[in-house]
Amino acid sequence: MNGTVVCFGELLLRLSAPGRERLLQTPRLQVQIGGAEANVAVSLARLGHDAAMAGTVADNALGEAALGELRRHGVDTRRMRAAPGRMGLYFLAPGALQRPSEVLYDRADSAFARTPASAYDWDALLEGAAWLHLSGVSPALGAECAQATLDAARAARRRGVRVSFDGNFRGKLWQAWNGDAGAILRQIFAETDLLFADHRDIAVALGQTFAGEDHEAAVAAAAQAAFAAFPHLQRLACTQRQQRSVDHHHLSALLLTRAGGRERAPGYELAGIVDRIGTGDAFAAGVLHGLIDGMDDARALRFGLAAACLKHSVPGDFNLVGRAEIEALVEEAGFHVRR
Amino acid sequence: MNGTVVCFGELLLRLSAPGRERLLQTPRLQVQIGGAEANVAVSLARLGHDAAMAGTVADNALGEAALGELRRHGVDTRRMRAAPGRMGLYFLAPGALQRPSEVLYDRADSAFARTPASAYDWDALLEGAAWLHLSGVSPALGAECAQATLDAARAARRRGVRVSFDGNFRGKLWQAWNGDAGAILRQIFAETDLLFADHRDIAVALGQTFAGEDHEAAVAAAAQAAFAAFPHLQRLACTQRQQRSVDHHHLSALLLTRAGGRERAPGYELAGIVDRIGTGDAFAAGVLHGLIDGMDDARALRFGLAAACLKHSVPGDFNLVGRAEIEALVEEAGFHVRR
Amino acid sequence: MNGTVVCFGELLLRLSAPGRERLLQTPRLQVQIGGAEANVAVSLARLGHDAAMAGTVADNALGEAALGELRRHGVDTRRMRAAPGRMGLYFLAPGALQRPSEVLYDRADSAFARTPASAYDWDALLEGAAWLHLSGVSPALGAECAQATLDAARAARRRGVRVSFDGNFRGKLWQAWNGDAGAILRQIFAETDLLFADHRDIAVALGQTFAGEDHEAAVAAAAQAAFAAFPHLQRLACTQRQQRSVDHHHLSALLLTRAGGRERAPGYELAGIVDRIGTGDAFAAGVLHGLIDGMDDARALRFGLAAACLKHSVPGDFNLVGRAEIEALVEEAGFHVRR
Amino acid sequence: MNGTVVCFGELLLRLSAPGRERLLQTPRLQVQIGGAEANVAVSLARLGHDAAMAGTVADNALGEAALGELRRHGVDTRRMRAAPGRMGLYFLAPGALQRPSEVLYDRADSAFARTPASAYDWDALLEGAAWLHLSGVSPALGAECAQATLDAARAARRRGVRVSFDGNFRGKLWQAWNGDAGAILRQIFAETDLLFADHRDIAVALGQTFAGEDHEAAVAAAAQAAFAAFPHLQRLACTQRQQRSVDHHHLSALLLTRAGGRERAPGYELAGIVDRIGTGDAFAAGVLHGLIDGMDDARALRFGLAAACLKHSVPGDFNLVGRAEIEALVEEAGFHVRR
Amino acid sequence: MNGTVVCFGELLLRLSAPGRERLLQTPRLQVQIGGAEANVAVSLARLGHDAAMAGTVADNALGEAALGELRRHGVDTRRMRAAPGRMGLYFLAPGALQRPSEVLYDRADSAFARTPASAYDWDALLEGAAWLHLSGVSPALGAECAQATLDAARAARRRGVRVSFDGNFRGKLWQAWNGDAGAILRQIFAETDLLFADHRDIAVALGQTFAGEDHEAAVAAAAQAAFAAFPHLQRLACTQRQQRSVDHHHLSALLLTRAGGRERAPGYELAGIVDRIGTGDAFAAGVLHGLIDGMDDARALRFGLAAACLKHSVPGDFNLVGRAEIEALVEEAGFHVRR
Amino acid sequence: MNGTVVCFGELLLRLSAPGRERLLQTPRLQVQIGGAEANVAVSLARLGHDAAMAGTVADNALGEAALGELRRHGVDTRRMRAAPGRMGLYFLAPGALQRPSEVLYDRADSAFARTPASAYDWDALLEGAAWLHLSGVSPALGAECAQATLDAARAARRRGVRVSFDGNFRGKLWQAWNGDAGAILRQIFAETDLLFADHRDIAVALGQTFAGEDHEAAVAAAAQAAFAAFPHLQRLACTQRQQRSVDHHHLSALLLTRAGGRERAPGYELAGIVDRIGTGDAFAAGVLHGLIDGMDDARALRFGLAAACLKHSVPGDFNLVGRAEIEALVEEAGFHVRR
Repeated sequence: MNGTVVCFGELLLRLSAPGRERLLQTPRLQVQIGGAEANVAVSLARLGHDAAMAGTVADNALGEAALGELRRHGVDTRRMRAAPGRMGLYFLAPGALQRPSEVLYDRADSAFARTPASAYDWDALLEGAAWLHLSGVSPALGAECAQATLDAARAARRRGVRVSFDGNFRGKLWQAWNGDAGAILRQIFAETDLLFADHRDIAVALGQTFAGEDHEAAVAAAAQAAFAAFPHLQRLACTQRQQRSVDHHHLSALLLTRAGGRERAPGYELAGIVDRIGTGDAFAAGVLHGLIDGMDDARALRFGLAAACLKHSVPGDFNLVGRAEIEALVEEAGFHVRR
Repeated sequence: MNGTVVCFGELLLRLSAPGRERLLQTPRLQVQIGGAEANVAVSLARLGHDAAMAGTVADNALGEAALGELRRHGVDTRRMRAAPGRMGLYFLAPGALQRPSEVLYDRADSAFARTPASAYDWDALLEGAAWLHLSGVSPALGAECAQATLDAARAARRRGVRVSFDGNFRGKLWQAWNGDAGAILRQIFAETDLLFADHRDIAVALGQTFAGEDHEAAVAAAAQAAFAAFPHLQRLACTQRQQRSVDHHHLSALLLTRAGGRERAPGYELAGIVDRIGTGDAFAAGVLHGLIDGMDDARALRFGLAAACLKHSVPGDFNLVGRAEIEALVEEAGFHVRR
Repeated sequence: MNGTVVCFGELLLRLSAPGRERLLQTPRLQVQIGGAEANVAVSLARLGHDAAMAGTVADNALGEAALGELRRHGVDTRRMRAAPGRMGLYFLAPGALQRPSEVLYDRADSAFARTPASAYDWDALLEGAAWLHLSGVSPALGAECAQATLDAARAARRRGVRVSFDGNFRGKLWQAWNGDAGAILRQIFAETDLLFADHRDIAVALGQTFAGEDHEAAVAAAAQAAFAAFPHLQRLACTQRQQRSVDHHHLSALLLTRAGGRERAPGYELAGIVDRIGTGDAFAAGVLHGLIDGMDDARALRFGLAAACLKHSVPGDFNLVGRAEIEALVEEAGFHVRR
Repeated sequence: MNGTVVCFGELLLRLSAPGRERLLQTPRLQVQIGGAEANVAVSLARLGHDAAMAGTVADNALGEAALGELRRHGVDTRRMRAAPGRMGLYFLAPGALQRPSEVLYDRADSAFARTPASAYDWDALLEGAAWLHLSGVSPALGAECAQATLDAARAARRRGVRVSFDGNFRGKLWQAWNGDAGAILRQIFAETDLLFADHRDIAVALGQTFAGEDHEAAVAAAAQAAFAAFPHLQRLACTQRQQRSVDHHHLSALLLTRAGGRERAPGYELAGIVDRIGTGDAFAAGVLHGLIDGMDDARALRFGLAAACLKHSVPGDFNLVGRAEIEALVEEAGFHVRR
Repeated sequence: MNGTVVCFGELLLRLSAPGRERLLQTPRLQVQIGGAEANVAVSLARLGHDAAMAGTVADNALGEAALGELRRHGVDTRRMRAAPGRMGLYFLAPGALQRPSEVLYDRADSAFARTPASAYDWDALLEGAAWLHLSGVSPALGAECAQATLDAARAARRRGVRVSFDGNFRGKLWQAWNGDAGAILRQIFAETDLLFADHRDIAVALGQTFAGEDHEAAVAAAAQAAFAAFPHLQRLACTQRQQRSVDHHHLSALLLTRAGGRERAPGYELAGIVDRIGTGDAFAAGVLHGLIDGMDDARALRFGLAAACLKHSVPGDFNLVGRAEIEALVEEAGFHVRR
Repeated sequence: MNGTVVCFGELLLRLSAPGRERLLQTPRLQVQIGGAEANVAVSLARLGHDAAMAGTVADNALGEAALGELRRHGVDTRRMRAAPGRMGLYFLAPGALQRPSEVLYDRADSAFARTPASAYDWDALLEGAAWLHLSGVSPALGAECAQATLDAARAARRRGVRVSFDGNFRGKLWQAWNGDAGAILRQIFAETDLLFADHRDIAVALGQTFAGEDHEAAVAAAAQAAFAAFPHLQRLACTQRQQRSVDHHHLSALLLTRAGGRERAPGYELAGIVDRIGTGDAFAAGVLHGLIDGMDDARALRFGLAAACLKHSVPGDFNLVGRAEIEALVEEAGFHVRR
């Protein structure tokens, strides 16, 4: 495949309670590496792409471990910086039944968050890139991070690198520094080719709300407005999730195009979810893979949804499944033990 | 809140097989602390009440660990005695699918069971108490335990401390010493304000059986008889459980009052139960919390049922959830990851 | 009970990823012992039969551990050989949701596979035996293993020992050495009294396919052909499995007799499967137990199906449940905690 | 080898804190099976002898697990009884540096301790036996246990079965029922051929103390008295242990014979002890093995001491080493990795 | 005992690599609670004193867990505040042989560090106190923390509460905010009765260096200067540690008094150290206990040193040993298994 | 640094018993990746070199995991092949005290061992290389592996790439295929610049034995012969190990040069060894690092010995320490906790 996919964002250490325990119910934590954009990078590397991560980690044993974990899964980490400071952490107690999962963020003042936008030389970082993948988490981390994200998107546009962006709107992060989410996202969306978002993300960017008789109608209305507002935007994709309980969901997906196309991927019943974190990132990576690989929109959407479905069965942030497994699900190859 | 809730009963060490293994399938055991009344004490402490435990533990490292675990969750252990002897144990192999959970009791001759009734000075132990919580396990452990339970209930009545009692009828324990369950329970019920029980417990106490076209009707008939027989009794509450498999239940609840009130809490579908032990105690604590907190009966019942529902998602005997989580479930706040 | 059940086959070490992790996602493996025929031996020993294992293990610490594990569950290992070489291994990553379980075999060139047929003295090995249990895995491991299996079946027939055979067809194993599965299975089936198989296994042996409007009809057609072709064959039994997802199945069973009898055991809904490996072996052992114990066909089938159902709740290859538990499920004794 | 070694005694579940933690410092326990006489049985079975265990376990999952563990290591458990009651337990927190290991016994009222002496039919239990191995723990458990031990020793003497006895004096156990240790041990020693004991055990039996300028002299004086008092006694062996810290000992051994022989085995420096429990039993089993195998006294003593030395490196009560490993240590084969 | 010992300082979560692994070598962390002053509080509570902790934790699940752990060991946490923010963390990879242990602090901007001095009402917090225990970590955390520590010391002096202070000088922390360690420590030492420090701590406070022919001489010179400079100071105690390797130390101790007394406690050889963290705090608590309990200086010093010695054998920050165990070591009761 | 160090050899999965347990004492295995040459590659990558691995892994999840683990530590795996077959395994039970560690190899017929020499294109594989590192394990695996190793050495010589070779003589492997170790090693040594070996390796290659009054003298005599026989050979280095027990060694080192230089590095006392596997590889990598980095021989030897010393403190095959830690040990920076 031609051209690297560069993902920019923060790496986080995830510290999880074992099994279905509450945080520190017993004195052990399992450690995994995550981060919305890193999750996409790992998925793409495992699907056979040249995937590279850009960003900043702490120059200590934790930062080194985070980089090692990306490398282990085939992601190129040579575009990463290490700087004094701390790693962002999050503590997770996975839920069950009617008890929601609980995430406790401890990511403020991380080496990533404190990196000035000027520390990134985007022309060098995008050398050889075909795509740049961003998400709404990075600009929410502070003015410098927002600027860096925008710099990245603009440099990509300038160099002919295509841009994908995953909404991932986190109100609390924006509020923490009084960031103008609308204004910033609007500028980023203006450089975006492929948007993973629903009507709520677009509402933030455009400052208007979208409604409809159902979720799909609202998304469609928002997409129409987005295509109008952002001339580079070609496609918008999102999942649709119904939660019967914390560990039993139904998941389907939708993809809309500037040309008016609308694809729906039939849904999966997810009863007995193992790990819900990172499933949106798995979806984005799956759709991106499909499009890079030359699938048509419908197929790319189904591939993305199948990837997201399988992620629910894997512990951790990363979607540790392979292309053949995703294809097998798309092809409904059944649930027999693979020997 | 004003006034301590004193819980009296035995602390047990629970030794569980990991995961869904059979007992000693692999040579490890997980240790938790439990006991019907201690479970209530922990729930109440976590809900913000002054909760204290009264009783007796072995004066060794295991008894010390049990007390430590109660203190950890905020229960006052200064009314506990330590005496020579052994701790009661129970071994648990949690079931799955169509295989029931298996409990192997090893609690005979514990320091608690061998404590004479005279060892407890109820006037001192109930100092500052607003409620006394008891359960049917304690009097079933032998004549001295039965006497101690009755002494406690009578001292509470005498001092104006309200009494709640959770049936927890265990036939095998009564048989082990030929105890006259009916006679003893009748005397305790006579001092009780709030009874957690269904028609089977009342049948034991009154020596008559209750039937009806369904569970609710039988409970209602029994409650009517109980209100007639026990003039101090104000309320009777119970859960209603349908078991589709070992780890898939449906749970609802019922509360009846001397004044003829009847509240039903709509049920929860519990698919993928993590730990079923202690859910009845979680219900009792939840209802008790509601009533102490001044909720009306319907709301207290729904709070208790939501507490019981959430307990099914937490490993161990204790209901390690907080008031906000229970309220969120009562309010149907949804199953999204809490960040 | 009178007479030993001798099981012949390979013991394997199973190395499993913990929880629902992918293989080596974290650097730990859980070790269990398995093997189609050993699983039957363990079930039968736990059900009170004299069960003995025949075969060959490596003469090293792993082989010793495998034998020790059989002895632990009451299987007589004195008919086992230890020889230079390696133990067969398989790596398992249990699946979840829509992600199938994954088995990676590393069993080639094991001490068992390299044992010449002449190494087994079947008259000695069948001393005191009432039944010989075989499966389709052994003859698929190579010409010598196929010959040994056939020798065993013929010696049993000659000595009046009844033969049960579980199809367990593994195409990849046969292909690895270009074995003529049809010819070999035909000779083995000719000595078999009780066959655990469906229409696909019989199709291999008879070189013809069987169809029908549904699974039962196809099995019935195949059974009719099998009874015609193999005059010693008295009974054919199989499970019927519908897979709603990887961890949610429905399981029922069917038993057909030479005399034209057809028994159906009503099925179980298996939602939240713990471990699917070895469930077919649990079924075979359950039916075998029923027949040895003198149950009628319908009861033996229900016992076998209940045993298979319960196996889904137990980690590992072995069905670590007891007779009383299986009987309780047959009798629909409910899902309450057993105290 | 000809003739079974029958060991009689109680099986205990050992519940240990992991690593060097205090009891319940974290809520996990590791489970092992132990018991002075069972430890000898396992050692002998692993050394190639027909070893059988006699005694009583609880007829529950814990008793079954204990038997399974013995079978796993090759011990014949068919002479064991299962009876209602509980298993004896002991909790262990291994020490380190200057902090002694801590054992918390919870063995009172076990199924073994409550078994009447009349429950054992020694003529049947000693069928085919060449040796009977006993220890001082069993008679200390109560009058019935003492009687059973004495019955066993006398039956052995009557049948020409040789008797070995390991002192293992536990004052607290004798005090608990006011047992006359001296009188009972005297009767048992009278039937004993091989005694593992030092001057303190003999002092109890003979009611006189023995002194000397050092440990060896005291033992020699006591041995002389014992040979005089007990005409069947042929040999007395014991270890000599100097404790520099909890995990650093020096261990040597001594064997004295009726004929006046005195063998000393040069000692081992044990720095970094893994598990000290069961090392005395490993010594007894090693010496017994040597004598049964026809070694001369000096060689048997060195074999026993090497076995005891190696046991310090193995977690658990059982000495999971093989004959070749012990021989290699006796031969000073060095400490290189065995590949 | 009369009067509470109030300890003021930060609670930290310690996240340790298991065994002797490097940080995140495998993806698990063990969690313990620590902090120099909390370690003292836990020791004192376990030794039977009324010990209370004052300070600030984050108002989240981690802060709650830290408080729970203190309560578990008997420390009164009702003087603690919970405030928005994060918990201080430290990551630990215990060393071995010639590889030093590695601590990675992530404690900046904790809820404790960001608490203004004015948030503490020392008259309320010292209600009922007999002693106040402080350490040099707290004032090093920032100007507000330094002020709070000084406020505490002065309030104690004013109220007649005795003050102990453990040097624990951490240059890096002081440098991070350019704090004037000398000036601040001087003011605190001026209120101190009992100082745990050696010549280096006093050098910082007095701005002069102390030398001598050996460690003891340098400490003695510094102590003389300290007694001269700080008229309230009565005693100075410190350990003396020689490190032969990371896990093999020799530890002795020294106590000097205003009256010119000098006590030396003979040392312990520590070969095979389990956990070195918190051993200084164990010493301080042991000496404090001795003095509060009325021991003479020599005995108190030996008690403190024995406590410190035993701490090296216990995983975690806390010294989970009891008074009897420390006394036994002081009395040289030996290393036998305690049964 | 200029130029890649290419290491050629087999990757192995190491499956270890936890703690000091015997193999499968409990049913868990810890998994690590190792292999003599891979261990060197990881060390060099962690020391800042461009290190690349060449060889063949199985094209399955285990091979993928092995590659991932190398990448994690910074080793370039793009010169690796994946081919059908199995991964070589070894099972390890670490010893203690007087019980040697036990390694059970299961590496026969691995994908690496079955790779024909012609599968490697050494001109491509050595592109950009400055050094090629080999060991005596690879040629011992069979004729094709021997040829591949020799091809590699010759291609390196031809291209001006320097060659280092670590003896690692394994007699059993050579015997398994009747390989002529002497002849093959002689040809490889002829291309070698830097040899890690002692007199025994050279004895094999030259077919003559070397003796002397002590180890150093024998090594010196052998080195003299080797320098005479192999004109490209510049340096020979080896460790000298005295084993006081399995976990207590003394380690020093020796380096001899063609010019007659002889450097001795003063030794380390290693009491309480954590993991002895891979320490020779750590030594080789350390010396290699020193020489590449331009240290003089004495310094390079001390660096190598310090690296080897530290490896004994780290679990697993890889030497997970950094340059600064090794330098600190060389500089005797002490054993204090690094904060």
